[in-house]
Amino acid sequence: MSKHKVIYDTDPGVDDAMALVFQTLHPDIELLGVTSVFGNATIETTTRNARYLAGRFTAGVPVAQGAAAPLKRAAPEPLAWIHGDNGLGNIALDITEQAALDPRPAHRFIVDTVRAHPGEVTLIAVGPLTNLALALAEDPQIAALVKQVVLMGGAFGTDGVLGNVTPAAEANILCDPDAADIVFGAAWPVVIVGLDVTQRTIMSRDYMATLRDRGGAAGRFVWDVSRHYEAFHEQSAQLAGIYVHDSSAVAYVLAPHLFTTRSGPVRVLTDGIAVGQTIQKPSDMPVPAPDWDSRPECKVCLDVDVPGMLALYEHTICGTL
Amino acid sequence: MSKHKVIYDTDPGVDDAMALVFQTLHPDIELLGVTSVFGNATIETTTRNARYLAGRFTAGVPVAQGAAAPLKRAAPEPLAWIHGDNGLGNIALDITEQAALDPRPAHRFIVDTVRAHPGEVTLIAVGPLTNLALALAEDPQIAALVKQVVLMGGAFGTDGVLGNVTPAAEANILCDPDAADIVFGAAWPVVIVGLDVTQRTIMSRDYMATLRDRGGAAGRFVWDVSRHYEAFHEQSAQLAGIYVHDSSAVAYVLAPHLFTTRSGPVRVLTDGIAVGQTIQKPSDMPVPAPDWDSRPECKVCLDVDVPGMLALYEHTICGTL
Repeated sequence: MSKHKVIYDTDPGVDDAMALVFQTLHPDIELLGVTSVFGNATIETTTRNARYLAGRFTAGVPVAQGAAAPLKRAAPEPLAWIHGDNGLGNIALDITEQAALDPRPAHRFIVDTVRAHPGEVTLIAVGPLTNLALALAEDPQIAALVKQVVLMGGAFGTDGVLGNVTPAAEANILCDPDAADIVFGAAWPVVIVGLDVTQRTIMSRDYMATLRDRGGAAGRFVWDVSRHYEAFHEQSAQLAGIYVHDSSAVAYVLAPHLFTTRSGPVRVLTDGIAVGQTIQKPSDMPVPAPDWDSRPECKVCLDVDVPGMLALYEHTICGTL
Repeated sequence: MSKHKVIYDTDPGVDDAMALVFQTLHPDIELLGVTSVFGNATIETTTRNARYLAGRFTAGVPVAQGAAAPLKRAAPEPLAWIHGDNGLGNIALDITEQAALDPRPAHRFIVDTVRAHPGEVTLIAVGPLTNLALALAEDPQIAALVKQVVLMGGAFGTDGVLGNVTPAAEANILCDPDAADIVFGAAWPVVIVGLDVTQRTIMSRDYMATLRDRGGAAGRFVWDVSRHYEAFHEQSAQLAGIYVHDSSAVAYVLAPHLFTTRSGPVRVLTDGIAVGQTIQKPSDMPVPAPDWDSRPECKVCLDVDVPGMLALYEHTICGTL
């Protein structure tokens, strides 16, 4: 098969870093570029981290700096208690080998790269969707030229959860609900990998230790970068392991058969107490819903083959695919 | 054990009627009164139906007429395609034995009855929550005097569903979201029996035939009243049977062990595209949420022992408890 040509839009972020390593080691992915966005940390921090990660794990892949703030709101506070003060679990960062910074802003990089590879580019977006909305605003025609958008964000309640930062909202979507509503309404194929599946998939400490011991430098990095993140999960959710957020979006691109999806238009609430909530009208719902019915269908992941997903990540990191 | 003293607040409605028969036949329920409310049909129709049902199945129990419209909105159109033009599946209604109409409005009847039996009254509410909100407005102290409020309404997504009349809203809550938000915010114990459990529980045609053949006059009535409703389910949802909405609230009162619940404050969205949505903050969610945190906890039903619930209804109707 031909490789998936991917632009990785990201706000590293610990799980973003784990998902980047996943992409660089999987033979079916060709990374065309990394675009940074505010979110888990400031744009300065996430861009620095993206350049560090790209330079270390996928030399030659350019990094383009993206949005510093949401379309219509103030930038959120960095999530230092989750991702560490440096956004990468407070590990030491040797930035002597950092990737080159593309002179274009992220949304222009996306537009140009999509136009250079019409019908071929997969956008894997695991932060606030601001860059994607800006790309659509600059060049709406790219929607028809993108192969698919696979994003980590949102929650649809099947796991009893509608949000992680509020009772109704997941962090990436809440960071820029206006952008998310634009992205879900554009005429490109969208797959939403939300908390319904990412919180079902947990990497235990034993699992992480296997990566550390058998995954070479990449496995060691994945272990190191996730220590602070694991402590956060234990403190906040009494979880003996970490949720697998961003890597689940990568897994969908590589192995969509591991996921159960539902089709239907998705809206994002952009104000009120549930701002940031994602709501799908399932395509088989037999009532009219004008706020949904004029919009394209998205695929929402409602379930995942957890052992299959964990095996895919492990074999990729450990080189045993 | 002492019986559950119940006021049944209802908008009959086919499943309302089935739930009324359930209550009248179960030995652990003492019905103190029936209060009508707009919803499945106009207040005139639901009151007429409530008087018919009470007169036929529980002679001597008074009926009080309630709200004709939501607190702040226009009354909805009757759901004739679901419940029939007469609200009771278009069966012939002999109203010569109809129950007496209490001179008080429903909310005053609720206040007086709660005050007459402090700490003892269970409110089973299976329509829009307008009467309960009006009772609270008239006499806020009743919140501390009610044993519990068990209501059918809302949806929390665990079954992949956030609504049945919109992608985000269940019918009873959408009919009066302002009232629902008031009821969920009052200091009485509230149990919410929503689509997460009521759409998991399905009475098949064979099950209904058993009631018809073994349930005497009540079973025959339950069969007759539900023919139109069953056809609606088949047409709209390709369902070979009927969802068990209102009777699930009655079942909770009788057998709470059949249900899995989650505690936490619940808000209702009162405007926007998701108006009518119910959102709980689970009590173990480790983030502040000011719009929820000042409110009392409700119990939300997330799962149900379906065979147990169906057996309870069948044995009650067939007199084989």
